[in-house]
Amino acid sequence: MKILAVNVNTTRSMTRSIGEAARAVAGEGTEIIELTPAIGADSVEGNFESHLAAVAVMDAVTAYEGEADAVILAGFGEHGKEGLMELLEVPVVDITEAAAHMAMLLGYRFSVVTTLDRAVPLIEDRLLSFGLREHCASVRSTGLGVLELEDAERAARAVARQAEEAVAQDRAEVIVLGCGGMAGLNAELSRDLGVPVVEGVACAVKLAESLVALGLRTSKSRTYAPPRPKRIDGWPLSSRMPAEN
Amino acid sequence: MKILAVNVNTTRSMTRSIGEAARAVAGEGTEIIELTPAIGADSVEGNFESHLAAVAVMDAVTAYEGEADAVILAGFGEHGKEGLMELLEVPVVDITEAAAHMAMLLGYRFSVVTTLDRAVPLIEDRLLSFGLREHCASVRSTGLGVLELEDAERAARAVARQAEEAVAQDRAEVIVLGCGGMAGLNAELSRDLGVPVVEGVACAVKLAESLVALGLRTSKSRTYAPPRPKRIDGWPLSSRMPAEN
Amino acid sequence: MKILAVNVNTTRSMTRSIGEAARAVAGEGTEIIELTPAIGADSVEGNFESHLAAVAVMDAVTAYEGEADAVILAGFGEHGKEGLMELLEVPVVDITEAAAHMAMLLGYRFSVVTTLDRAVPLIEDRLLSFGLREHCASVRSTGLGVLELEDAERAARAVARQAEEAVAQDRAEVIVLGCGGMAGLNAELSRDLGVPVVEGVACAVKLAESLVALGLRTSKSRTYAPPRPKRIDGWPLSSRMPAEN
Amino acid sequence: MKILAVNVNTTRSMTRSIGEAARAVAGEGTEIIELTPAIGADSVEGNFESHLAAVAVMDAVTAYEGEADAVILAGFGEHGKEGLMELLEVPVVDITEAAAHMAMLLGYRFSVVTTLDRAVPLIEDRLLSFGLREHCASVRSTGLGVLELEDAERAARAVARQAEEAVAQDRAEVIVLGCGGMAGLNAELSRDLGVPVVEGVACAVKLAESLVALGLRTSKSRTYAPPRPKRIDGWPLSSRMPAEN
Amino acid sequence: MKILAVNVNTTRSMTRSIGEAARAVAGEGTEIIELTPAIGADSVEGNFESHLAAVAVMDAVTAYEGEADAVILAGFGEHGKEGLMELLEVPVVDITEAAAHMAMLLGYRFSVVTTLDRAVPLIEDRLLSFGLREHCASVRSTGLGVLELEDAERAARAVARQAEEAVAQDRAEVIVLGCGGMAGLNAELSRDLGVPVVEGVACAVKLAESLVALGLRTSKSRTYAPPRPKRIDGWPLSSRMPAEN
Amino acid sequence: MKILAVNVNTTRSMTRSIGEAARAVAGEGTEIIELTPAIGADSVEGNFESHLAAVAVMDAVTAYEGEADAVILAGFGEHGKEGLMELLEVPVVDITEAAAHMAMLLGYRFSVVTTLDRAVPLIEDRLLSFGLREHCASVRSTGLGVLELEDAERAARAVARQAEEAVAQDRAEVIVLGCGGMAGLNAELSRDLGVPVVEGVACAVKLAESLVALGLRTSKSRTYAPPRPKRIDGWPLSSRMPAEN
Repeated sequence: MKILAVNVNTTRSMTRSIGEAARAVAGEGTEIIELTPAIGADSVEGNFESHLAAVAVMDAVTAYEGEADAVILAGFGEHGKEGLMELLEVPVVDITEAAAHMAMLLGYRFSVVTTLDRAVPLIEDRLLSFGLREHCASVRSTGLGVLELEDAERAARAVARQAEEAVAQDRAEVIVLGCGGMAGLNAELSRDLGVPVVEGVACAVKLAESLVALGLRTSKSRTYAPPRPKRIDGWPLSSRMPAEN
Repeated sequence: MKILAVNVNTTRSMTRSIGEAARAVAGEGTEIIELTPAIGADSVEGNFESHLAAVAVMDAVTAYEGEADAVILAGFGEHGKEGLMELLEVPVVDITEAAAHMAMLLGYRFSVVTTLDRAVPLIEDRLLSFGLREHCASVRSTGLGVLELEDAERAARAVARQAEEAVAQDRAEVIVLGCGGMAGLNAELSRDLGVPVVEGVACAVKLAESLVALGLRTSKSRTYAPPRPKRIDGWPLSSRMPAEN
Repeated sequence: MKILAVNVNTTRSMTRSIGEAARAVAGEGTEIIELTPAIGADSVEGNFESHLAAVAVMDAVTAYEGEADAVILAGFGEHGKEGLMELLEVPVVDITEAAAHMAMLLGYRFSVVTTLDRAVPLIEDRLLSFGLREHCASVRSTGLGVLELEDAERAARAVARQAEEAVAQDRAEVIVLGCGGMAGLNAELSRDLGVPVVEGVACAVKLAESLVALGLRTSKSRTYAPPRPKRIDGWPLSSRMPAEN
Repeated sequence: MKILAVNVNTTRSMTRSIGEAARAVAGEGTEIIELTPAIGADSVEGNFESHLAAVAVMDAVTAYEGEADAVILAGFGEHGKEGLMELLEVPVVDITEAAAHMAMLLGYRFSVVTTLDRAVPLIEDRLLSFGLREHCASVRSTGLGVLELEDAERAARAVARQAEEAVAQDRAEVIVLGCGGMAGLNAELSRDLGVPVVEGVACAVKLAESLVALGLRTSKSRTYAPPRPKRIDGWPLSSRMPAEN
Repeated sequence: MKILAVNVNTTRSMTRSIGEAARAVAGEGTEIIELTPAIGADSVEGNFESHLAAVAVMDAVTAYEGEADAVILAGFGEHGKEGLMELLEVPVVDITEAAAHMAMLLGYRFSVVTTLDRAVPLIEDRLLSFGLREHCASVRSTGLGVLELEDAERAARAVARQAEEAVAQDRAEVIVLGCGGMAGLNAELSRDLGVPVVEGVACAVKLAESLVALGLRTSKSRTYAPPRPKRIDGWPLSSRMPAEN
Repeated sequence: MKILAVNVNTTRSMTRSIGEAARAVAGEGTEIIELTPAIGADSVEGNFESHLAAVAVMDAVTAYEGEADAVILAGFGEHGKEGLMELLEVPVVDITEAAAHMAMLLGYRFSVVTTLDRAVPLIEDRLLSFGLREHCASVRSTGLGVLELEDAERAARAVARQAEEAVAQDRAEVIVLGCGGMAGLNAELSRDLGVPVVEGVACAVKLAESLVALGLRTSKSRTYAPPRPKRIDGWPLSSRMPAEN
């Protein structure tokens, strides 16, 4: 089966990391196809960039000419899943919800550790919208920007500190890594903390594979029915751009 | 004071209606400036179009070179308010929240009457995110598309029928018109139903004027802090498009 | 238009402050008429006094022989709005809800800073009843009584300290001044804190003006229908009292 | 032990019915003392009358010169419990909460059947404030006014019809009689419906006796601390009235 | 009347303490009959033991050959009430809900102080299921195991420390003792803290007596209808065990 | 990998159906091991039987001497998952939560169609406890008992009727089959209804496989820490029974 793993920012090294994280857990016979949006920010750290990413992802998926059995939306706490579900028949799995679903299977309450303080309300809002906030103990920030996560050691220390406080003070029993760029930290962190650490890209791959295996597709009955035929100016966006992507 | 009233679709006649509805209630000294996005759908009736509208509105506001003391986002139940708040210092008022805030001042519970069935979950989700769902009795659909509202008589009948049921069955005490294109129906409907009927564009104008008069602006402390400086490909979107707007 | 601004306690100097705060933001052509209840406590700092204020306000408004286009209930966290809405056709705006509605337009979460610790549950309960608690980060107390607020410098320091903690610890992005007697502190406090500070009397004036401008009145369909005709002993209360008010 | 059963309206025949309902279940050694407010409406059917009743009850209890070990507030869905709790050290039990507490012990969900449609939101709001709405399936109205309940047969039929629908449609497993004036209907109704029917006055007596037996009194630590000493004009209300009550 | 007080663990000394706590508050004419399960753990401190206790209690009550007018389930935060309600016609009162119901009558918010940290989520989950979590300020643990409570002085100190923090930090106004083995601590603790301290066994006795006095029994209409006749292997459990209990 | 699929009742034909449903979707290399409890009811249709099943399942798993990489609890809406999680290190997946998690990925709201009316509150309560009720539109019953489902045609008709009403009236976009015995109905039902139909056993297998593949195990930090060592009478239950299972 083919799973499209779509980054939400335009940083290709990050797309590759997402692809690697996905391939590391993909089942035999699953092909991971990476996709980087042609437009948008080089890191998504707020609502403006998140809204832009929503459209950039839809644009990239529309422009993609290959086949896919499922799509993974690899931005933690970002907008856009709902629109993408309308455009596609195949399952769409957002890494935010994927991580939360899995975390809820492993302990009574989970905490998310994310990047900047300003990302906290976005994540809380997405969990609320997904109906997954009831068992969320807290969303905590490390204060690091998305691209600062590339200093893996520093990132690990900052995430570990917040994760420890989430366990001790917020009563979290499971930690969710709240940024696509944190993939890779989970194994060591879990060993050190003594609690499960859940990473969204990996969870999304397994959920997408599961849905495909079960023959389940997005319901087209109301919310995610295909867009009605109509005039749309400037769409797809990248068709107006100088070729390069 | 200058208030920018931004349509979420590309239908200019609808922008004009929004502008008229805004001017009809604007205070002395308030200038309403209409804005139509350069990209997007000619009517917004689902998540894909709504996500696209979020970005199209940000694009249009970014391209706008004049001044504004406040901005009204004139799509009922659409995405994008949060991103726009990041980009601007001046207040941003979404007509969905504006109508709900006003409705809550007038009765114990309100119902929204909107266009298509598929718009219902979008509106419910926005009210949830805004923290305004507690006193919402129901969101009901007329089954009419946004552009079908131009047949004013048919629209009035369809809205009236749902509004009556909301009052009788859902215990609504106030009706909210759930589409920017329904402006103009409220006076007669209110007279017929015997309950207040609230229209979002008008409410948004008064709330925007109020915030400006009180010297209140969007908090920049966390969620709506300005975007961090970074590389953004393809932004603003309309800069890539053939001039015409 | 005439707006009746009704104090909830019997301290006339406080009524005058409320009137001044109201006039400072009132639009051209808006006349603010102050009203002090004939009965009740000289400051309202608990449930007994609040329940008494509810009736005292209804009594004062009933005794008032002039005209009014809207009424402002100028007690933060006090009871009585619902009964007043039954008695009147014109809009009634409570400063608690007014401040919360406005605060919700300006940031993701707001905190209220009020007087005594014992006022906290009253305010929480009113916000719950109004359906406005979802985005309330916290209600904090300064430990000062209502009349101690007259020492403006001390009040400013105490409010500032709690507001800072609300921003830092409770993630508030907007501060609501939780007492009619705090009017006047907002401008300086906002400058110092760097977040919007919202004051209820001012907000209520603008919301009342807005409702009047939009021709909106309280729904009379169920909850706020006029009282049924019946024998009521001792009403209005002040008719039994020695003339003096 | 002495329990003060306070009516919320001024209709003495109704006070007597409340007293009888209370005595019918009171334990040996429990004396029920009836109290009728000197002011207020002859039936409480809305917010204005309910707010007035809140104060009238506090006034009557203040004027009462005897002793009491507990106080029952015998208005279903009325305001005022919180203020009364401040004034007294002994337990105060509201019949609304009493009935809901007991109903929750007997089945998974309960429905309230009350008088007029306009009383429904008051009851819902009180249950919300008491934290008792989670297992409330519905609040239904018979359309009868409080004083129309004196036609016992008609009342019984109207209540039975709504109770049946609550069981069949709303999945109620227990019925709560939502008016002090419905005492006496429960035995027959329960037999006919085949589900427990709970009446608030009786429940309140048993809860008050229980609290007294356990030596439990209202917490005075914050919300219900005694009112601070201060000037209160016109209090107690009945002191200003011509002697007669 | 006869009330069956059923321990959830197999420690007979604890059953006796429960019986004593029950008798200390039982009304005249109430006979308390103690029951110890034949199977299960000597203390219940987690989900496995709690699930086992649920069945052990049902087994013990099934094996009991005498009469009972009501049954008290004397484990704080344990499973099993729902099944027991199906098996019996007479009222069943769980000490967790009993304490919460009573605490809600005494103050705005209550905190539970329990034994081990791992018991906290069980109690939170039971309060959620009972619909009684809205006014629960916190559930705090002393870190002591159930059987360590037999060192009364140490228990008292540990409970007092958590109760003080609940009052100061969590804004609790009432303390609930969150373990059947804490009966006996409440009087002194209440004196020291200055807030009511509620103990579940005592509350359950009074609620059970109240329900019996009111002639109220478990609703058999849906959730708690008697089990359908069917083959059940190994039931009752104790019938398979060597006689000894 | 080995997955233990544990039935909650003692009907071996139903265990086999569960095993078949599991094997039908299991990945290559996954071995499904069926387990039937030695004690309990031949169908679980209420709280008593559900509590018994909780213990019977723990007993069966304890008695099982083989290895397992994950365990599936194959009773829809039944108790016991939490205790089982304490006893095991490997993941435990309940089919109720499994189905809800998957359904939430496929549409905005889901409805459960179950057997008897009395099962509805059990399922609602489990979804509440799992934090999965927010997007549940309704739980509907067919009126058929668990063993009546063996008449596949009748079952299909009854389920279809409720599913249609869930889609039309409750706005469900996904249907969850609310009984382990309904496995097999989903393909045809989905085709007829035009919305995804989710079956819990299949979902649980894929989620269990996913957790194992990701190396994730139950958090042992608090709620699901192993039981403390202590004396437990009569455990394991089946050790006391005449050999036969």
